[in-house]
Amino acid sequence: MTGPAPARGLYVPVLTPFLDDLSVDVPRFIGHCRWLLAHGADGLAVFGTTSEANSLGLDEKIDLLGHLIEAGIPADRLMPGTGTCAIPDTVRLTRAAVEAGCGGVLMLPPFYYKGVSDDGLFAAFDAVIQQVGDARLRIYLYHFPQLSQIPIPLAVIGRLITAYPETAVGLKDSSGSWDNTRALLERFPGFGVFPGSEARLLDALRLGAPGCITATANVNAAGIAALLAGWEGPDAEALQQRAAAVRAVFSGHPLIPALKAVLAMARADGAWRRPRPPLLPFDEGMGRALADQLSTLGVDASVE
Amino acid sequence: MTGPAPARGLYVPVLTPFLDDLSVDVPRFIGHCRWLLAHGADGLAVFGTTSEANSLGLDEKIDLLGHLIEAGIPADRLMPGTGTCAIPDTVRLTRAAVEAGCGGVLMLPPFYYKGVSDDGLFAAFDAVIQQVGDARLRIYLYHFPQLSQIPIPLAVIGRLITAYPETAVGLKDSSGSWDNTRALLERFPGFGVFPGSEARLLDALRLGAPGCITATANVNAAGIAALLAGWEGPDAEALQQRAAAVRAVFSGHPLIPALKAVLAMARADGAWRRPRPPLLPFDEGMGRALADQLSTLGVDASVE
Repeated sequence: MTGPAPARGLYVPVLTPFLDDLSVDVPRFIGHCRWLLAHGADGLAVFGTTSEANSLGLDEKIDLLGHLIEAGIPADRLMPGTGTCAIPDTVRLTRAAVEAGCGGVLMLPPFYYKGVSDDGLFAAFDAVIQQVGDARLRIYLYHFPQLSQIPIPLAVIGRLITAYPETAVGLKDSSGSWDNTRALLERFPGFGVFPGSEARLLDALRLGAPGCITATANVNAAGIAALLAGWEGPDAEALQQRAAAVRAVFSGHPLIPALKAVLAMARADGAWRRPRPPLLPFDEGMGRALADQLSTLGVDASVE
Repeated sequence: MTGPAPARGLYVPVLTPFLDDLSVDVPRFIGHCRWLLAHGADGLAVFGTTSEANSLGLDEKIDLLGHLIEAGIPADRLMPGTGTCAIPDTVRLTRAAVEAGCGGVLMLPPFYYKGVSDDGLFAAFDAVIQQVGDARLRIYLYHFPQLSQIPIPLAVIGRLITAYPETAVGLKDSSGSWDNTRALLERFPGFGVFPGSEARLLDALRLGAPGCITATANVNAAGIAALLAGWEGPDAEALQQRAAAVRAVFSGHPLIPALKAVLAMARADGAWRRPRPPLLPFDEGMGRALADQLSTLGVDASVE
């Protein structure tokens, strides 16, 4: 059985809209997924950190994945986040994604118990892979030490690639450390290292990165897609600078509420402002200020 | 409708045994619960940190709770951990506990998103309480900043007590900070503040603590129960010193694997050694050394 092709290009950790009662706003979510695919996204990393996926219930995520596929979002362009604290929950969610035909999954390490050993971390991923037991599984490890507090060390990545070369095929590096991104790209050629930000995307592409998985693509998919399309051309540096400038607008702000506020503003749709607790809505005046800065940079996240 | 009585005395975060295939060893778990209740435990805080509860799946925990109650463990002596990263999962688990008649639940804050505001944290607990919507619910907040990375500040606790005086009835303080335990006891008289360790239990009892929820009770329930029974008598200081000395044996060791190793040794039952990844078994020689030290202190965790 042949599995999914390697992920390439721009993957968006899709923001998740909520209704007044804090339940997921399914139609608005599907609409945003469609809009992203129509405006530069190659794939959708639904249930990422930016998606508030760790505030979504297990059944809720499985149901939502079903809704996306029923709505005609191509499964092979989906890379849902499936890593939880517990092996059985990670297995259940991962199996659902594989059976739905998803192109891959983005997998956090188990993140409650701190200070775990390399052997323990490897054993956890190993158990998930064995229990899912499906040759179609493609895992993109999710390295986000600031939130998970559990880094995925190079030694563990190397062991996973050796043990499961067809399965452990990539990684999202949300460390924000260029040294780490570079080390990954240099040490594991052919392994799909996606920077978790477009801030130094051009440098990463030049070292072989297959693309980028970045939160700000929720409002600037077109700008980042332009960089991915033109990175070998004469405008590469200008495209990189412009993408980085857009990203910099969010610097120092809580990213998820700020992105939601900007999207709400661009679409004149206040419902987008609402995160799920423990996150809270972004300050409205501040949201307007960010939207104005983005306009100046030519960013248009309205639904035209 | 009258709800459960306030928890008092010694609650044990019960270690969870696993089979070779990493599934929960239900009969061994029930047996240990019975042994604890017969040897000094007043209640069982199943699904705590020590229980590796954050490595257990959502369905697994609900099933296991059912097994305990079917086996005749009194529901009103159970205080299962039900706090997860996501409101829907916390609600589902909490509702199952309330409907099973549990005396209370031990609730972690949502712990993936870091640096959340007091308002956001309050909103998360508030949403859980509203969605469970059951007057029988008794919440013991679970303050364990080293692992959750999300402290529960005094201000949030105060707001919860004011908003839900019948529901937000207590807290387990696993901060290891005596200043924090004392501040809680002094600021919220009548609120059930359980230290997460017996190291300074006597001091806490003198300030009004109703008891203790502590991992080491898995091997020393009798010793800690003796302190709780005798804390107003002439042997109080000696009982405290002895309990603290037992606890000190584990100092500097990974507590969960070490407790499992000691239990395996005491019961000549190697199956107890196995944690679930990302945790790994304790070194066998080191386990023997700890067991020897405990013997010297008169601790007997064998099944007589």
